[in-house]
Amino acid sequence: MTFIRLQTPKGTKDYLPPEVERHRYVEQRLREVFKLWGYQEIRSPAIELVEVLSTGVGSELIDSMFKFQDFDGKIVALRAEMTAPAARIVTSKMLEVPKPIRLFYVSNVFRYSQSYVEKEREFWQAGVELIGCNTPEADAEVLSLLALSLEKLGLEGVRIDVGHAGLLKDLLRATGLDKEKKDFLQDLLGYRDEDRLEEFMDQNNLSSGLIEAFLRLSRCRRLDELSSVSLEPSKYGRTGDYLRALLEVKDTLVDYGIENLLFFDFSLVRKIEYYTGIVFEASVPNLGLPLGGGGGYDNLIEKFGKQKTPATGFAVEIEKCLRALIAQGFQPLGQRKVKVLVASRFRDSAIRAVEAFRGIGVTALLDVTRGGRKEALEYANRSGIRYVVFVDSSLEKPATIYDTRLKTVKNMAIETFLQSVEADQK
Amino acid sequence: MTFIRLQTPKGTKDYLPPEVERHRYVEQRLREVFKLWGYQEIRSPAIELVEVLSTGVGSELIDSMFKFQDFDGKIVALRAEMTAPAARIVTSKMLEVPKPIRLFYVSNVFRYSQSYVEKEREFWQAGVELIGCNTPEADAEVLSLLALSLEKLGLEGVRIDVGHAGLLKDLLRATGLDKEKKDFLQDLLGYRDEDRLEEFMDQNNLSSGLIEAFLRLSRCRRLDELSSVSLEPSKYGRTGDYLRALLEVKDTLVDYGIENLLFFDFSLVRKIEYYTGIVFEASVPNLGLPLGGGGGYDNLIEKFGKQKTPATGFAVEIEKCLRALIAQGFQPLGQRKVKVLVASRFRDSAIRAVEAFRGIGVTALLDVTRGGRKEALEYANRSGIRYVVFVDSSLEKPATIYDTRLKTVKNMAIETFLQSVEADQK
Repeated sequence: MTFIRLQTPKGTKDYLPPEVERHRYVEQRLREVFKLWGYQEIRSPAIELVEVLSTGVGSELIDSMFKFQDFDGKIVALRAEMTAPAARIVTSKMLEVPKPIRLFYVSNVFRYSQSYVEKEREFWQAGVELIGCNTPEADAEVLSLLALSLEKLGLEGVRIDVGHAGLLKDLLRATGLDKEKKDFLQDLLGYRDEDRLEEFMDQNNLSSGLIEAFLRLSRCRRLDELSSVSLEPSKYGRTGDYLRALLEVKDTLVDYGIENLLFFDFSLVRKIEYYTGIVFEASVPNLGLPLGGGGGYDNLIEKFGKQKTPATGFAVEIEKCLRALIAQGFQPLGQRKVKVLVASRFRDSAIRAVEAFRGIGVTALLDVTRGGRKEALEYANRSGIRYVVFVDSSLEKPATIYDTRLKTVKNMAIETFLQSVEADQK
Repeated sequence: MTFIRLQTPKGTKDYLPPEVERHRYVEQRLREVFKLWGYQEIRSPAIELVEVLSTGVGSELIDSMFKFQDFDGKIVALRAEMTAPAARIVTSKMLEVPKPIRLFYVSNVFRYSQSYVEKEREFWQAGVELIGCNTPEADAEVLSLLALSLEKLGLEGVRIDVGHAGLLKDLLRATGLDKEKKDFLQDLLGYRDEDRLEEFMDQNNLSSGLIEAFLRLSRCRRLDELSSVSLEPSKYGRTGDYLRALLEVKDTLVDYGIENLLFFDFSLVRKIEYYTGIVFEASVPNLGLPLGGGGGYDNLIEKFGKQKTPATGFAVEIEKCLRALIAQGFQPLGQRKVKVLVASRFRDSAIRAVEAFRGIGVTALLDVTRGGRKEALEYANRSGIRYVVFVDSSLEKPATIYDTRLKTVKNMAIETFLQSVEADQK
């Protein structure tokens, strides 16, 4: 007999029944919230043309894609994120749908990561896209939906860090520095080391106005502190507009009552390149990595179509949400619902009985093994099945009912037992 | 601006919101039935080592797999079916779980098909595996679950054709013919042309007992007719055992009350090679292709592990079930649930209002466009949103409520309107 390797490819995993159940719980809760907010689900192929998947995402993500040739010689890849596919769908198949369009998805995505921390090469994301509107209210809706859907899952201490891709980019551009120095300046912002930041800007002869802007922005921890930052209008690109928009986003978040969950982080950047507006990441305490994030992207969709179509979206990783829930003491589901194993020498009675249980929504297994009572009881005990019901030649005759938890045996009419189980289920 | 191709790879498709909703409906109904019967969901990676996916499935399926190298240089493929992955999981991760093990899955699978009829290269399957038991009751459970879950979807005229891989193979072997002639004989059985079949068997000097067996079996249309076929015991491999088992399966199906949905087809073969016992396909009238099928496989699991572990399973294609439902006049879902668009110059009131609607389970969209009343009404009309609610500076003041279906306008307190919508939802 040949020996077959039993592993799955690196970075992929199996989900056994209890894990699938928890995963489905998170997925289903998120789906319910997204729907209540008017978002509608789409699904795209797992494989797409590389040129579609690569649009706007930047080289880091492109390098991480599983690419191969399909049977027609086209270069395809496994999707690495869902925003580019959503942009393609909106542009090619939803032209007649009035904007804003609210979409969501629950999909697996595939990335090769060299990071030691994120080892998953296949993982499941749930995300939304609000397409065709770039008001502060649109950004605030997506931020609020992110925060509130995580809270609906039962997560505590949800926190969202917000930055602005355009604001950072325009100010970096205003420095006139070369790419290497701009990258270094950006790194310094990330370290939050004000002395080194100031020293570097002095050495590179940045104007005092610009130095002041960088320092003030990197000191802001809350969106409302941005009101203290005054940028000379029309001097550093569109930075003035961006600041005003961020403050309006903040005002809307106050209306949602979630402004206390939001923090400002001037240095926040996302791995994916298409973001032009706000960018953000959601996290909970004591979990190393963010649960997900997103941002506003004004130019991605027009790369697929002709019309300029601003949009904002986010994605969260289902597995990370689950890990966070479990870390916070979330009670794993499953095994709560009563299960019944039905056995009998009289096959027709046994089948009548399982049908009766299933008819009232109780999970019922038929003993198909032709084994004895002892084997049936042992199977039930080891499988977490609460009751073993041995039925006689007719359902009218009393059945012998073992309770594997209370370790009791009763003789009872099936009808009576059904009623008690049905009452317990409620 | 570069021009991006907007197609998806051949054989793949996008699912727009109404399609996803229908798809999820089918998926969810099947999941509910599978669970009621005690089956538990598993999920495996979309990519697996080719040697795992190839185990036992036969060359036709292996040739149809999308194969490529992963980042570690291993040859992987997109899964083409779920039984081999389930066998791997049971062998490597469920050794302690008592048998029989009941598993189900809802997964996309990937196959390159050269057929003109089946063009899908990615499609969604829902399926079950009953592992570790090969009694006629086990086979009958899987057949009944297939038939009854399709009926639960709302399908009418469900029909299951049953054959037996072992029976056919052992009788073909007993002919002593070479492979080419055996294949030809098998084709003749499929054509159901008795004259040509008899002529061919005569020409090839088959024994009269064998000719009689082939003719009688190929005439059987119902499982109970098999009782008229008498095979000399222990003459043609295990054919006698197989016949007896098929008759016992039939008896069990009588207990389930579904024997009238089952038909016998001696020539039935499945594309996948691992089947050794019963094989079957489910169909409904007027749909060219079967909705799905399956069978018993006694030797697949031991190729992964050491223990001989018989099993029976089936998979149905969700898309085909959906097509069959629609062909039978199934009412597409969606748009039944009431949706509300809330707009206001007073953002805080509008947010209070959407929260109130969502709180009672009504889908509510916030107008984030900063447009006027006319635009909001037009958006709602075109989007199938039933009500547009213009709220005043406080929710205590009456709101103006447009009903886009009845084309009416009312001034009403939000509280009163909430109550009427909540009553309508029920």
